Amino acid sequence: MRVFISGFGNIGRGFFESLLIKDAYLKKRYEDLVTIVGIVDSKSYEVNDGEYKICGFCTLGNKNNTGKLHTDRNGLSCTEIMDMVDFDLLIEASPTNITDGGEGLVNIRHALKKGKDVITVNKGPLALAYSELDALAKENGCYLRFEGSVGGGMPMINMCNEALVGQKINSIQGIFNGTCNLILSRMDSGIPFEQALREAQQLGYAETDPTYDIKGIDSACKVAILANSVFKKDVKFSDVSVTGIDTVTPEAVEMAAEKGMVIRHIGEISKDKLEVAPRLIPKNHPLSVPGSLNKAQVITDMAGPITVSGRGAGKSETASAMLSDLIWIMDRRTA
Amino acid sequence: MRVFISGFGNIGRGFFESLLIKDAYLKKRYEDLVTIVGIVDSKSYEVNDGEYKICGFCTLGNKNNTGKLHTDRNGLSCTEIMDMVDFDLLIEASPTNITDGGEGLVNIRHALKKGKDVITVNKGPLALAYSELDALAKENGCYLRFEGSVGGGMPMINMCNEALVGQKINSIQGIFNGTCNLILSRMDSGIPFEQALREAQQLGYAETDPTYDIKGIDSACKVAILANSVFKKDVKFSDVSVTGIDTVTPEAVEMAAEKGMVIRHIGEISKDKLEVAPRLIPKNHPLSVPGSLNKAQVITDMAGPITVSGRGAGKSETASAMLSDLIWIMDRRTA
Repeated sequence: MRVFISGFGNIGRGFFESLLIKDAYLKKRYEDLVTIVGIVDSKSYEVNDGEYKICGFCTLGNKNNTGKLHTDRNGLSCTEIMDMVDFDLLIEASPTNITDGGEGLVNIRHALKKGKDVITVNKGPLALAYSELDALAKENGCYLRFEGSVGGGMPMINMCNEALVGQKINSIQGIFNGTCNLILSRMDSGIPFEQALREAQQLGYAETDPTYDIKGIDSACKVAILANSVFKKDVKFSDVSVTGIDTVTPEAVEMAAEKGMVIRHIGEISKDKLEVAPRLIPKNHPLSVPGSLNKAQVITDMAGPITVSGRGAGKSETASAMLSDLIWIMDRRTA
Repeated sequence: MRVFISGFGNIGRGFFESLLIKDAYLKKRYEDLVTIVGIVDSKSYEVNDGEYKICGFCTLGNKNNTGKLHTDRNGLSCTEIMDMVDFDLLIEASPTNITDGGEGLVNIRHALKKGKDVITVNKGPLALAYSELDALAKENGCYLRFEGSVGGGMPMINMCNEALVGQKINSIQGIFNGTCNLILSRMDSGIPFEQALREAQQLGYAETDPTYDIKGIDSACKVAILANSVFKKDVKFSDVSVTGIDTVTPEAVEMAAEKGMVIRHIGEISKDKLEVAPRLIPKNHPLSVPGSLNKAQVITDMAGPITVSGRGAGKSETASAMLSDLIWIMDRRTA
């Protein structure tokens, strides 16, 4: 299984490290070796050949290097670099671009058209062009997997589509952004939004520019991805009705508390609803949770409510989702 | 896919009904039809041929019956009846026998030796003879699936082994018996065990003879099954240290409450522990839940804590788990 990694920030490196950590496991499970044959990031690239061989990108596992790090892409596009080497699987972990899908969308299209399997955690392409990519994968006999794009370490897409296979999922309601939930749960104790946000930034949860999280854009991408992949709808990010948490006031939180409720930022996918918005949630409801976890409640036709929670982000957590997708694909490709 | 059902109480009937409900879904997914070729219960049997053809057992879907209900087994064992007909898959849903595995264990052994796949929700055989059955399945190239044996509608075994594949699961702690949790959560409000039990019986949760639940036997079976199937240990029911909830007093509940804790009946599987016992749980802990749901917290090496909850029992809920196992097998047998 020859792997090409596009995007080598936190997520791409996390996936790479997971291969090293799970080296013995993978070698025991498969005769076929996982080899990294190319890595591209925004500035540099390397095409390589051999088991886990990485040069300048990463000092991990760099015995017997044969590749050479090019510290300048020299105007080469990622797809041009992809074409320099034979590979079986693209790991797309470049930054999310929610305007036009960015290089990630171009890369995924390119790989699928070449008949290569794809694992991605890049929400932009999936929230903007899911139906096109899904069709492209089917046409070319490829697998397109993206467990890590929703809820990091919380098993969500594969749980719905595989563990719950056969059931009709009537709705999913969830907390899909840990930063927003951390801010809202701090606001439960009476502090204003701005202060809770600053605290989340100081704790390293919220970005310096927190727009993507607090305006609900990140959650809306996940709602679109679940609508497409679990509910088999054909929707885009722009079909999701989105309200951020930056308008939630201490007064609103206090009024909610008087009624035994909290305010939480809930994404919902159901027959007639695609929404991300602050909502009043009874204190004893499964989604009334504090802290930075992600949590979802899935309502099925046969088993009623099923809830799942886990860490929504993090290097190792997201890598765990990508690893499960890799094994899913290898089980089928090496059978 | 020719199916033989042994055990036609609530669970066997629930599975059968799920085939009728999911008829269109299954026909769309597979060219191969699911047909019921035999049903046995404790008193009667029918061997049959054709799509969902059932005579006296069930009036559902009985168009074009060709079989005939024998209202007396006439001393025939289930395996003798199995041998009257060709089948591909055994659904084992006879009552749990925790002493020697009962007819369920005999049936599963017989089917696997004949090279037939097995789906079971019968905890006895899995808690007493898992390693033997697992080996028998492998020897004979069969699948043995049992998602419904732990947690009914809560996806547990397949979530751990498939959605979380690749990760090392360090421990599972869970509430695996809804009746016990209902009793303990009623005791939170100060009422004694005997009264809470009577209430649970009146609500239809607890059996007239509640021993199996309140002594922790049911939970201990599930702990043994998870230890074998998820942790790849080789344990039996008798290896689990079990304490029931019948010794929990209102005084103990009150003392727990004073420390911000509740008492819950927790099953744990970890490196050095196989245990079912009442435990003190902090009120804000994920396992401090009221009511009759099942809930589990899985600790993994890469993603940390993942929690899942769902209805632990029920006809339709358990059938949903059996259906997911059926689809898993059909995906592989009809590929």
